[in-house]
Parts: sequence; C-alpha cells; structure tokens
Amino acid sequence: MQKKIRVAIISFGRIGKIHMENLIANPKFHVTMVCDIVKPADFEADFPGIQFVENYEEVLKNSEVDAVVIGSPTSLHPSQIKQAAIAKKHIFCEKPVGSNLEEITDAFEAVKKSGVIVQVGFNRRYDDDFLAIKNRLDEIGQPHILKITSRDPEMPPAQYLANSGGIFMDMAIHDFDMARYMFGEIETVFVQGAGLVDSNIIQYNDVDTAVTTLTFENGAIGVIDNSRQAVYGYDQRIEVFGSEGMLQNSNHLQENTVYSGKLGVVSEKPQYFFLERYLKSYDTELNYFADSILEGKPISCSMEDGVKAVKIAQAAKKSLMTGEVINIE
Amino acid sequence: MQKKIRVAIISFGRIGKIHMENLIANPKFHVTMVCDIVKPADFEADFPGIQFVENYEEVLKNSEVDAVVIGSPTSLHPSQIKQAAIAKKHIFCEKPVGSNLEEITDAFEAVKKSGVIVQVGFNRRYDDDFLAIKNRLDEIGQPHILKITSRDPEMPPAQYLANSGGIFMDMAIHDFDMARYMFGEIETVFVQGAGLVDSNIIQYNDVDTAVTTLTFENGAIGVIDNSRQAVYGYDQRIEVFGSEGMLQNSNHLQENTVYSGKLGVVSEKPQYFFLERYLKSYDTELNYFADSILEGKPISCSMEDGVKAVKIAQAAKKSLMTGEVINIE
Amino acid sequence: MQKKIRVAIISFGRIGKIHMENLIANPKFHVTMVCDIVKPADFEADFPGIQFVENYEEVLKNSEVDAVVIGSPTSLHPSQIKQAAIAKKHIFCEKPVGSNLEEITDAFEAVKKSGVIVQVGFNRRYDDDFLAIKNRLDEIGQPHILKITSRDPEMPPAQYLANSGGIFMDMAIHDFDMARYMFGEIETVFVQGAGLVDSNIIQYNDVDTAVTTLTFENGAIGVIDNSRQAVYGYDQRIEVFGSEGMLQNSNHLQENTVYSGKLGVVSEKPQYFFLERYLKSYDTELNYFADSILEGKPISCSMEDGVKAVKIAQAAKKSLMTGEVINIE
Amino acid sequence: MQKKIRVAIISFGRIGKIHMENLIANPKFHVTMVCDIVKPADFEADFPGIQFVENYEEVLKNSEVDAVVIGSPTSLHPSQIKQAAIAKKHIFCEKPVGSNLEEITDAFEAVKKSGVIVQVGFNRRYDDDFLAIKNRLDEIGQPHILKITSRDPEMPPAQYLANSGGIFMDMAIHDFDMARYMFGEIETVFVQGAGLVDSNIIQYNDVDTAVTTLTFENGAIGVIDNSRQAVYGYDQRIEVFGSEGMLQNSNHLQENTVYSGKLGVVSEKPQYFFLERYLKSYDTELNYFADSILEGKPISCSMEDGVKAVKIAQAAKKSLMTGEVINIE
Repeated sequence: MQKKIRVAIISFGRIGKIHMENLIANPKFHVTMVCDIVKPADFEADFPGIQFVENYEEVLKNSEVDAVVIGSPTSLHPSQIKQAAIAKKHIFCEKPVGSNLEEITDAFEAVKKSGVIVQVGFNRRYDDDFLAIKNRLDEIGQPHILKITSRDPEMPPAQYLANSGGIFMDMAIHDFDMARYMFGEIETVFVQGAGLVDSNIIQYNDVDTAVTTLTFENGAIGVIDNSRQAVYGYDQRIEVFGSEGMLQNSNHLQENTVYSGKLGVVSEKPQYFFLERYLKSYDTELNYFADSILEGKPISCSMEDGVKAVKIAQAAKKSLMTGEVINIE
Repeated sequence: MQKKIRVAIISFGRIGKIHMENLIANPKFHVTMVCDIVKPADFEADFPGIQFVENYEEVLKNSEVDAVVIGSPTSLHPSQIKQAAIAKKHIFCEKPVGSNLEEITDAFEAVKKSGVIVQVGFNRRYDDDFLAIKNRLDEIGQPHILKITSRDPEMPPAQYLANSGGIFMDMAIHDFDMARYMFGEIETVFVQGAGLVDSNIIQYNDVDTAVTTLTFENGAIGVIDNSRQAVYGYDQRIEVFGSEGMLQNSNHLQENTVYSGKLGVVSEKPQYFFLERYLKSYDTELNYFADSILEGKPISCSMEDGVKAVKIAQAAKKSLMTGEVINIE
Repeated sequence: MQKKIRVAIISFGRIGKIHMENLIANPKFHVTMVCDIVKPADFEADFPGIQFVENYEEVLKNSEVDAVVIGSPTSLHPSQIKQAAIAKKHIFCEKPVGSNLEEITDAFEAVKKSGVIVQVGFNRRYDDDFLAIKNRLDEIGQPHILKITSRDPEMPPAQYLANSGGIFMDMAIHDFDMARYMFGEIETVFVQGAGLVDSNIIQYNDVDTAVTTLTFENGAIGVIDNSRQAVYGYDQRIEVFGSEGMLQNSNHLQENTVYSGKLGVVSEKPQYFFLERYLKSYDTELNYFADSILEGKPISCSMEDGVKAVKIAQAAKKSLMTGEVINIE
Repeated sequence: MQKKIRVAIISFGRIGKIHMENLIANPKFHVTMVCDIVKPADFEADFPGIQFVENYEEVLKNSEVDAVVIGSPTSLHPSQIKQAAIAKKHIFCEKPVGSNLEEITDAFEAVKKSGVIVQVGFNRRYDDDFLAIKNRLDEIGQPHILKITSRDPEMPPAQYLANSGGIFMDMAIHDFDMARYMFGEIETVFVQGAGLVDSNIIQYNDVDTAVTTLTFENGAIGVIDNSRQAVYGYDQRIEVFGSEGMLQNSNHLQENTVYSGKLGVVSEKPQYFFLERYLKSYDTELNYFADSILEGKPISCSMEDGVKAVKIAQAAKKSLMTGEVINIE
C-alpha cells in the first residue's frame, strides 16, 4: 500500500481551503492538521479526524506531520519556512517566498542545511497549456522572443492595493517566474508603467499598467504586458518565438459555444479569474510536490526559483522608480 | 446533515467503474454494494466497506439500497429495470434501455406502477457545451435546421461490431437523443448508409457511414452524419440554426497550444474518444439523478426518453434496409 | 502579341455588367458588342468603342465576334446557346443552362455538332477556397462524406420567388454542381424541405429550408442544407471527409478584426452576399474560359455539367413533391 | 467628366512598377511620364503613350505633370521632394522620407512654402485591417497598451543589410508610424535588440531581433517586437487595449482551408511577404492621394508624419547603442 505524506495546512484562508480540497482528494496525501489563528465554527463537522491548532509550534513538534503547506500572509513566509526546515518538515509555500530579501536568504540557508524539500507555489508552471509549451520548446529551435500577456479582470480594492507589495511583487511575479521557466535566467529588466486604470495608484508608488522588457542569458528578449483591468476577463497568453517557429496558447473561454446573429459572431469571454482558469494547476502542483517527496523526483519549483522571482520583481520596481535598465546579479 | 442516497452498482465493467469513481466523490451518494458475476481480486482492499454480491436479488432485497446504477449488457436492462422498479429502488440505467421493444415496454409499465425515479444515461445531455446550447436555444428564434456531426476515431473490433446492435442502436442513438433534447419530438427518419471504412460490415446488415435526415414536430429539419472512423479523432459537433441565428460548439482539442512552423499553423487533434471528451458529463448526470431523488427536481432523461431513442434507432435501421422514409408513431 | 478573344455580352443586367468589368480588365478579351433590348442612356460615353445592338442576330452574324457571354433570363439560354453554336461562336452561359430539359438537350446537340467551346457559369468552382479543396482532395483519401452549408442572407421578394424556378433550380443548383465537382457523379437525391422562414412560399410548390441527401457513384454520401435566410449573413461552408482526414473552408468575414469587450469576443459577420463573397470567382471563371479557347485547356465547366446540375435540381424538386428517393439516370 | 491627375513615376524599380499598375487602373490618374536612369527594353511596347525620360528635370519642367510618385533610393528622397515642391508638383513619396534629418528638414521647408500636397507611403495605414481598428478605436475606451508584432519571413541578403539603414529605419519604421497612427505622439523610446538570427549583423551596428517600448503623450504604453526571420511567414499583428476592451487583427493565411488529419488540425501559413499581404493597400493609398488633390480631403499621411517616423527610428537606434531611454523632442 502506498505511503501517504502526512501534511499540515498552515493558514486556512481562501488558498488554504483550495489546497485542503486537493490534498483530501489526492491519495498521496493525508491531511492531519490545520493551523490558523481562528478556528472555523464547523471545522470538526466538516473535517472529522483533522486536528486544528492555533500554534505553529504544535505543528512543527508533531512527529505525525511530514510536510507543511503554507498559505499565510507573505511576510510570515520566511520565518515559517525556516522553522519548518529546522523541524525537518517538507515545505510547500505559496508565492512569493517573502518580501524582504535578507529574511528570505536566512530562510534559504536553513533549508539548505536541513535538506528538506521546498516547493514554491508558482502554480502556472503546472497549467496544462504552459506545460505543453515547455515540453515542446525544442520545436521553436533557438529561443528569440518571449511574450507574456497577463491582465487581471478588475482592480482589487484600494485597501488590498495599499498592502499588495505592488504590481510586480503581487501580480507580475507569476510572469517573471514563467519567463524563467520558459527561457531560463534573466539578465536585465526594464519597465514602463503608469496609473491608467486609476491614477490614484501612484500614491502607493505603484502602477496598474506595465510593460516589462527582459533580456535572458541565452540572448533572447522577453516582454510582459500587465494590466490590473481587462474588462473582457482574465487574459493569460504566452508566445514563444524562435529560429524554427512559434508556440502560443489562447485564453480559456467560459463556454465553448459560438453564436452567429445579427450583430456578429460572438464567442464567450475568457474565464473570469485565476481560480477558474488555473483551478487544475493547484491540484497538479501538489502532485509534483508529492512525487518529489515520495519518489525523489527533481523539485519542480525550488526555493531558489522563489528567490529569483523576488529579485526580478524588486528589479522591476527599481526600474519603474529610476527609469533605468536594472541588472539582475 | 445531508441525506445520502445509498446506491448499488450493477455490473462492474468499464462504465461501472467510472460511475463508482464519480459516486464515491459525490457527497450526495453512498455506495453500499456492487453486483457482478465475478468479484475483482482486490475489491475489498480497493473499496473497503462496500459489499460485493454476485446475485442481483441480494441487491434488490437489501433495505440499505435506495437506488441502482445499471451498467450491464443492454439485453439485461429491461428485466433489471423491471425488478428494481418492483423492489422500489430508484434506477439509473445506461443507454440503451434495451434492444427489444416488448421487453422495454414491459419494464416501463412496471416503472410507471412503482413510481420510482428512472434516469437513462444519455450522458451527452449533461456536457457543458450541449447544456449551454440547450439553455440558449431561444437566441436562435424559431428552430429551422439541426446538424449533428458524430464520428468515432476508429472502427471497433469485428467481434464488437457483430454484437453491437448496429451503428444506430450502438452509436447514433446518442445523436437521436440529442436531436430530441434540442428540437423535441421526431416525426420521420430517413437514412443513407454505406460500408465505406470496411465493406465487410455489410455482412452484419450494418454500415460504418450514415447520413440521417430527421423531421421534427415543430417543423424543423435535422441531419446527423455518422462515421465509425475519423482519423483525426473523436468529432462531436452540433449546430442549431433558426430564424434569429445559429449556435455551434467546437471539438475539444488535446492541447490548447498552436504551433506555427515551416509546414503551417498546427493545432492539436480533438480529444481521442468519449471517455476523454465527455468525462465530466458522467459526473454531472449522476448529480442530476441525485437532485431528482433528493430534491424532487424533474427527471432530466426519463424512461420515456430512453424508449423514444430506441424507437428512432429502430426506424433508422428500417429506413436503411428499405430505402424509405419511416414515420415514428 | 497575345491574340484577344473578341466577345459580345448578351443581356446587360446586373451579372452582364459584372462580366463587362472583368472582360475589360482581362487582356485576353476584347469586348466588341453588347446586346440587350434597351440601350442604357450613357452607354457610348461609358463604353466608347463598344457597339450596342438590340438584336441577337446581329451579334451572331458579326464576324468580329469570337464568343458570347450570355447573362439573359434562364428561359432564353437554350435557344441562345443553340444559335450561337450554329454561328460558331464560343459560349459562356450563366447557370442554369435552361429550365426545360428538352430545349436544353436540343441546344446541347447543336453544341456537339458545331464543336464550339461552351462554359457554364458555376462561378463557385473558381473560388479560391473551393479550388484549394478540390486540388487537395487526395489528402482525405477515399471520399466518405460531403457536407455543404449554403444559406442566403435574406428571402428574395415575393415576385422574385414566384418566378425563380424554386429553391433547387435557383439556389441549390450551385450546391449540386459543387457536389459533383468535388465527389463526382450523383446517383440518388432525397429531400426534406419546409416553408419555415415564410410559410407562404408553399403556394409556389417551393420551400425556403431544405436538407438534401445525395449518394455518389463512388459510394460516398452527401448532404446539403439550404436556407433562404441566415440573419448573420451569407453562409457558405463545405466539408469533405474521407478515410485519411477532412478538409473544410470557413466563411469570409466582413472584417478581419476581433473585439473583446464586456459582452464577449466579437468577430464580424460573414460577407453579406454572393457578390461580395464570390467577386473574384467571376473574374477567374472568364480566365479559364479564355484559356480553353486560346490554349486548348480542358473545359472547366462544360455544357454536360450544366445539364447534369439541372437534372439533379429537377430530381430534388420531384423528391420534395413525392417524398421519395429519386434516381438520377 | 472627371479631372485626372497627370502623374510621373520617379524610379521604375519594383515599387515603381507596382505603383504604375495601380495608377493605370485608377481612373483618377493619368500616367504621363516615367523617369529612371535606364529605360527598360520593351517600355514603349508595354506602355504606349507614356513618355520615358532619364532626367528628373524634364519631369519637373513639364507642365503636363501634376504630381510625382517617388520610389527612388531613400538618399534621393529629400532633394527630389524639395525640387518637386519648388516645381509645384504634388508629391507621393515612398517611406522613409530620407535618412539625414537636416536634408529632410530642408525639403520640408520647401514643401511648406510651396503648398503642394505631400503624402508619404506608409502603406499599412491603408490596409483594411488597420483601417478597421483605427476607425473603431473608440470601442476600447481610453488607450492603455499597444502591441505590434512585425516579423519578416527571412533575412535579406548581406548586401542589402549593409546598406539598409538598419532594422529601425528599414523595417520597424512602418511600425513606428503605425504606433503614431493608432495612439498619437510618442514621447520616449527604449530598445533591446540582438543578432539572434545571424550574429554577423552586429558588424553593421544592426540587429535582427528587437523589442521596442514606447510611451505616448496620452499616457499609454506600446511595445513592438521585430524579427527579420519568422520561418512560418510574414507575421503582422496589432493589438490595442484600453479601458473598455481590446481590438486585434490576425494574419492573412495563404489559403482559407483547414485540414484535419492524423497529425493534427493544420491551417495554412500566413501570406509570405508584404507584396502579398499589403497588395491592396498600395492601391488604396494612391486613392487617398488623389482625393486629397482632387477633393481637398485631409492629407492621410503627411510630410510631418514622415519626419516623425524618421526621428523615432533614429531614437530607437540611439537607444540600442546606448542602452538608454531616448526622449523624442
């Protein structure tokens, strides 16, 4: 009989609940604990047999826990990773791995020492479309140009924006990781950004519209265009172009039917947002995590990947502020 | 706490196992028994707590069973439906409801007397694409033309063909039901068919390629084209056309990526066959079945629907044999 | 220097004027005469050097005329063809070649005797899309199924309908010719038709909606669906399916731009009607005519093709009236 | 009767011959002269009635010439424009208007003084797709992001590259003009470029792959990606995105048919290069030129437009060389 990974979910918010559902349905996992500061009313009825604790320490000292799935606020990630690494728990941590590079580096050191497996939750790597492009990259020959369009359907509330860390750390960081995933290491970052959806965003030193140019170690050039508001829905497209051709995905529409009428030929809008569009990827990423633990498969999105995405996001912010091209060390 | 429907699966072949998986994952059901003539080796290990019996009688007399899900060979359907109806079990039965109209009518009488809920497994009714078209039918105004393309990816083995009941009862019956689902009752059937993929099929009084013209009570005209072999994969398209416009679905491709290279712009082939293409519909149909039992919602595909599809399939066969237009009573 | 075909245009209505424009622009032709019953006011100013006559005899006896392009009412076609053949003029005649089979046969006899070149104006044969499919037919292997969708954008006026010859002779005859062009000789015809757009059409023994099933000598099956009214525009699609694959064209949209907005993803409607959609084919067909005359290339749409299309249209009408399958001799 | 513009074609190379064909077919023009350094052998036979001269002076002093269409090498444009302006001839000049800003400014002064009409040959402005997007710009609300993909099918020969003026002046200048045409004045330019198709291009201080970021006076951000080699054919796409939605065009394929076979669903490649893709625009632009002269319609692509495109191209080159963001004065 298959060995199951005994897992604790750290922070039981929206993303924690998605992970809960996927972990329960996945035979490679057994959810033993959930840790959050407030216990939901019906927790025991809804999740019989799963222990609820309010203290992270209790998770770490519990020998019945093999791994933690961290979905807490970003600022807590580095310390939670570090402690889990010291406690020899494998770690799945939501992106980004943190917002302060010193803390992140400190956590990374602990991870390296302990030898636990850390996977960062850049879920788009596990999306069927992007997996297909990644797996078929040789069909384009030498990589020349990478284009990512990544637009959210609507502006988040002002309060969210104020604490989001900015468009690069909060939103474009997924695209920076995708760029590295596709074409490898990034050398330079240049940004043009503006507050076009709502100019009030400038007060947070933030923008809602940005075009970011990247250069890669392999010589290729990349460009990412981001917007906080595409009125037609979540716009998630990638195009890789090279010496032998081009690969592209297209948006997933809400319905696969087309209406031809007096006004034209009308298809549905793209799926509304990331929970619809990337639902399956949240399940797939945990499966990869399990395979790294159970079968020793290579880590599919490592702590180092998490750190590099943060560095690129910080460089993008710096480019926005200075108007200069920023080198990634 | 929600009441669960205690269900027994009758016949544990390929389709029985698909239903098992969906029933287990659906909180509205509790699988209590499986009935088949041979018990699989690891049954108890794989399905702890589910009773295995070799005798249908044991299912019917068990008061812990509220409903049966019948996936046995077609010839057994009428008697199994009849017995289940008498035993007051709700019934989900795979299509077709039988091959002999007298037996089917007999079973239907028993169903009417007992008042149990019977749902027939025309799973395509529950496919997201076809549900969307059905729900948006008013956008086309008065219905004028219905077109269904339904082509399998490859010929089944000769042995299967010999016992399949023929292309109309085995394969096109789904399309006949879809036609009724969309445009209502059918008045006449006319068929042109041929053995073009493999002329040997003629020995079974069967064809592998057919174009069927239907007329509907509402005055509309329909056409279904069937083939046992589309080398590019499972081809499942529907088009409804009327006074105000047209609705169409398209095939689901194996991958959502497009490659542009020296030879052209290449998309993936359609998903290979019905298990890939209609996977979700097998789950959805059971959910509708549960809602009819638990919440009294109208039966979404009734015994009468099952009977009518058989009558149309028989009329199609008769038209093929006689070259005449056949009226459906 | 290239020899030019000296040509007379017979009947100067809408289609005659289109041919005039194409003939003038084509260096293989020299328009010498136009014949119609009424001379347009500005004819000489608009077309200096082109002689206008009101009598067909004058055209035929003029030794400066090598060929006639006939765009007169259908009932005049057979006698005009016959006379031109006797006068040794090459003939381009609009479809259909006539409405009375006896007259047509009589004209055909004259053509055979005289040896002149006759091309019938089934312009869709010369459309780039259909030429491409025709030229690539071997890619589908053995032909199995042919599907033609052919829908006009709106009902013609009642007066036109009363004298149109009916949907099969007036409209579907193009599709019958296309079917033969693609898959070869037709053996049987079966029609289901109805007056769904406007039931008044029944008074002319006519329909506005029809589904026609064809069988071919090569064993393949065909289906044509016609409607007099597609509110989204002219719908002209063809699909050929065989043992090795499928070829399809798509409609030509009025604009090649796509708008994504709050209501969905919106493409333009198809080009409105045949003059827009098939404009280029009217030019191409005359070029083929010239090449048959000047270079002896095979006739691309012969008198025999014209006769056969009429026979199929008549069979379709007969099937509609009798409800029976009609054999084409 | 319509007044015709008497026009002389200056330089009779590839583009001059395209203009000749369009001018002859356009009733608004009458071609009176052609000027080039070498007279083609069959000129008189091919173009009876058109005078051939080897000296530009002869054109300018000829009172039978109302306008010149200049298709000579770029370095000659400013002086030929200046002289024609002084001679009071209307001017249609191929892009770019020159390569030396001082000379161009000098020519522009002469144009302003003389009051003749000057139209610059940015033919893409007159393409149906781009005209449609331009005309529907209000549907996207406030402009936020402009994306242009512009890739040639293959590298020009080394000799051409050596004298091309570089990718920005030779190729991307069309895209810079398109950017201005769509979103208005450009404020800054930033380029990342590389020699990825052939690194030898670096010896000309040139690149074959470039991503250019633009900022507009209206606050929007633009990005252009260029490549000298797309193996699948000429790739010409534009996307305008704003507060209310998005407009996109797509490539024109060589054939409008789709093949579904064992290897996938295959569409044709894009039309090979600019002469196929933009053929119609060369005709349309001359029509606009005629309407400005004959009917006083606003100049559709002015000398000033030509000058601005050159300035942006020069800024792009400077950005490539310095790695800095360049302001457009």
